[in-house]
Amino acid sequence: MVLISTLLNRLMMNLDSLYSELTLKNQAKMALIVLDGVGDIATAQTGYQTPLEAAKTPNLDALCKDSALGRLIPAAPGITPGSGPGHLGLFGYDPLEYQVGRGVIEALGLGLELKPGNVAARANFCSLDEQGIVTDRRAGRIATEVTEELCALLSDNIKKIDDAEVLIRPGKGHRFVVIFRGPGIEGPLTDADPHHEGNPIPMVQPTQPDSEKAKKMAGLITKFYEVALPILKGKTPANGFLMRGIAHQPDIPVFQDRYQMKPACIAVYPMYKGLAQLVGMEKLEGMTNIEEEFQRYLDQYDQYDYFFIHFKTTDMMGEDGDFEGKKKAIEELDSALPILLQKKPDVLTITGDHSTPCPMKGHSWHPQPVLLHSAFSGSDKLDRFTETCANSGSLGILEAKYLIRLMQANAGKFDKFGA
Amino acid sequence: MVLISTLLNRLMMNLDSLYSELTLKNQAKMALIVLDGVGDIATAQTGYQTPLEAAKTPNLDALCKDSALGRLIPAAPGITPGSGPGHLGLFGYDPLEYQVGRGVIEALGLGLELKPGNVAARANFCSLDEQGIVTDRRAGRIATEVTEELCALLSDNIKKIDDAEVLIRPGKGHRFVVIFRGPGIEGPLTDADPHHEGNPIPMVQPTQPDSEKAKKMAGLITKFYEVALPILKGKTPANGFLMRGIAHQPDIPVFQDRYQMKPACIAVYPMYKGLAQLVGMEKLEGMTNIEEEFQRYLDQYDQYDYFFIHFKTTDMMGEDGDFEGKKKAIEELDSALPILLQKKPDVLTITGDHSTPCPMKGHSWHPQPVLLHSAFSGSDKLDRFTETCANSGSLGILEAKYLIRLMQANAGKFDKFGA
Repeated sequence: MVLISTLLNRLMMNLDSLYSELTLKNQAKMALIVLDGVGDIATAQTGYQTPLEAAKTPNLDALCKDSALGRLIPAAPGITPGSGPGHLGLFGYDPLEYQVGRGVIEALGLGLELKPGNVAARANFCSLDEQGIVTDRRAGRIATEVTEELCALLSDNIKKIDDAEVLIRPGKGHRFVVIFRGPGIEGPLTDADPHHEGNPIPMVQPTQPDSEKAKKMAGLITKFYEVALPILKGKTPANGFLMRGIAHQPDIPVFQDRYQMKPACIAVYPMYKGLAQLVGMEKLEGMTNIEEEFQRYLDQYDQYDYFFIHFKTTDMMGEDGDFEGKKKAIEELDSALPILLQKKPDVLTITGDHSTPCPMKGHSWHPQPVLLHSAFSGSDKLDRFTETCANSGSLGILEAKYLIRLMQANAGKFDKFGA
Repeated sequence: MVLISTLLNRLMMNLDSLYSELTLKNQAKMALIVLDGVGDIATAQTGYQTPLEAAKTPNLDALCKDSALGRLIPAAPGITPGSGPGHLGLFGYDPLEYQVGRGVIEALGLGLELKPGNVAARANFCSLDEQGIVTDRRAGRIATEVTEELCALLSDNIKKIDDAEVLIRPGKGHRFVVIFRGPGIEGPLTDADPHHEGNPIPMVQPTQPDSEKAKKMAGLITKFYEVALPILKGKTPANGFLMRGIAHQPDIPVFQDRYQMKPACIAVYPMYKGLAQLVGMEKLEGMTNIEEEFQRYLDQYDQYDYFFIHFKTTDMMGEDGDFEGKKKAIEELDSALPILLQKKPDVLTITGDHSTPCPMKGHSWHPQPVLLHSAFSGSDKLDRFTETCANSGSLGILEAKYLIRLMQANAGKFDKFGA
């Protein structure tokens, strides 16, 4: 009995529940500016500087004077996150608890609307021999136009499988996405992909064997193959396809209910709009660069309580290993910042969703620097928003999921805990 | 199924059990000096200084040279704690796991003895109209003397409700406390307080509906109202009362068993003595200032292993927003420190239970600085015990509940883990 009650107690003390209990509603505004992949590492090749250190950032420097700094662990020590977990953490959702399938992310990246319960898979065309053995997993990397034609062909012939609506949308190169919309289905399923050439396409199976909904979904995938493969028969080189990351859109607590703030997403790229939409943010459309994004923030200042503003270029340059480009991207952001500061929110945070170090040309696990500015952030007396300064900040090095909690605290949106 | 396995996992990972297993008993002495609310923030108004930075603290500075520094998160990121959770954390009890009701804290603050299982409520007089509608939740903020008279009247007429002894004790202004001592009762209950004027006093209910003890307690409260309201009938303006934070003293593992140390509490104010008593510390009585507190430490040095020494003024000045006052309070503490250092304990820690930044005039979530001094603390080569220095300390920024574990380690009170 003691054991059970201890367990139940622990469950009930769930930290998210406590945060919810203490959450207050007020008029304070807050903005989160995400410089995608901004974090970097200093190495000998770049004179031991990071792009943030090399960049001229007078506006960030000025803000720094009255800010608290720290670093954010995107998911867990050593874990390199994709954009999905990276952003979910910043939105205050534990990325280990709320896992979003790659199919869902891919679909969001293509700008597709997903509703809770929809199942999405990322797919790509492949080459099969007469025995159904995969001879080229990427069908010779066919051009986007070919994929578009093949997807149109499949779409025209397959509208439904049993009671589930099927949507097929082309991506870049040999890639596409399939969405299933119907009652009583869920993922995740194992991949319809042998992961090595020379093997047949394996049957999919629920990864949680006792899920009836996943069993139904596995049946739908099998039937989808039965209908789709004959349509592709004879095409070269793309006479087959593989499906991976087959999962449903997770049921994520709605942002506005969870934090008692009305949130807006200001982003250029569909992927980030999709991630914001996953947690129930409203997407503002039509911006093409950071100046326009900040201007939209100004225009919509009175309509929302929380603004997620996404800046992509830092990540793109990091992926290219382009140190100068990443430095310039940071300077571009810095130059645009005064637009936003015309109506400074009560709490302003600037950070990344992860690091994308130029020497690595890809996402990494290195905690991204974060700057938090409010009337009550205090000053850490650090001159600049850089990785090294952030190491000495008062926020410490903490999990990204706590950032929104600090923002809520700084905005006076938490009641006192206990007497 | 998933739920149960998660719970079992949590149980098996219980860190407290591991600490207990490794705990050793030895002759080492330790002292925890709590400068209540000492943490602060640097802002432009104070020339970017905190009171700790502005204060002249030669004795703390000297100690700093051979100390490790860091910052303590009182409960969880962004959470502003009351004194209860703040101190429980410092005593090594997770404040999220051991929650103490406001009634209990209030009773402790009045110096009342509470035993495990006693239920306490904070109460205050109010005004009711003829229909029992609350017209003034504070009864015009009647004077303490009036409250004392009314409490005496209630006390004289109500000694027991069923099998539970009832204690009624006046507080400040319109406030008082009611304690129930009897078998088979517990909280927490919902408040007997509509929280807004123009409504009747609501019936109380268990917040955990399946607790038989809480159901019994709810019945006692209802009967208490049935007996007490007629006694107040016709009084103006205080002819009714509201009850809030109705909860039992939680069953907290006893300090001496948990840590194998005999603890003493050296504090001036009843609240802190009460909190120490909650975990089973012995209260030493009769001090009125920090010099006397340190002197008592010297006198009792041989009688105890662990000394909790509480200094209140820093918090009071912070609550008043009095930067100079807080600075002077720190200097007062510093001047008195040599008394304690006549018999330096093997491990000495100096910290707060939370921050009370002057610009906020109240408790906050900002991690409080901590200094740990022992033969094995090492030197962080930081000059001063300040927030900024603490940001770079070797203790890092960690949850307050771990402080006592570091003290145990520094005192040689932990066996090695594993071979």
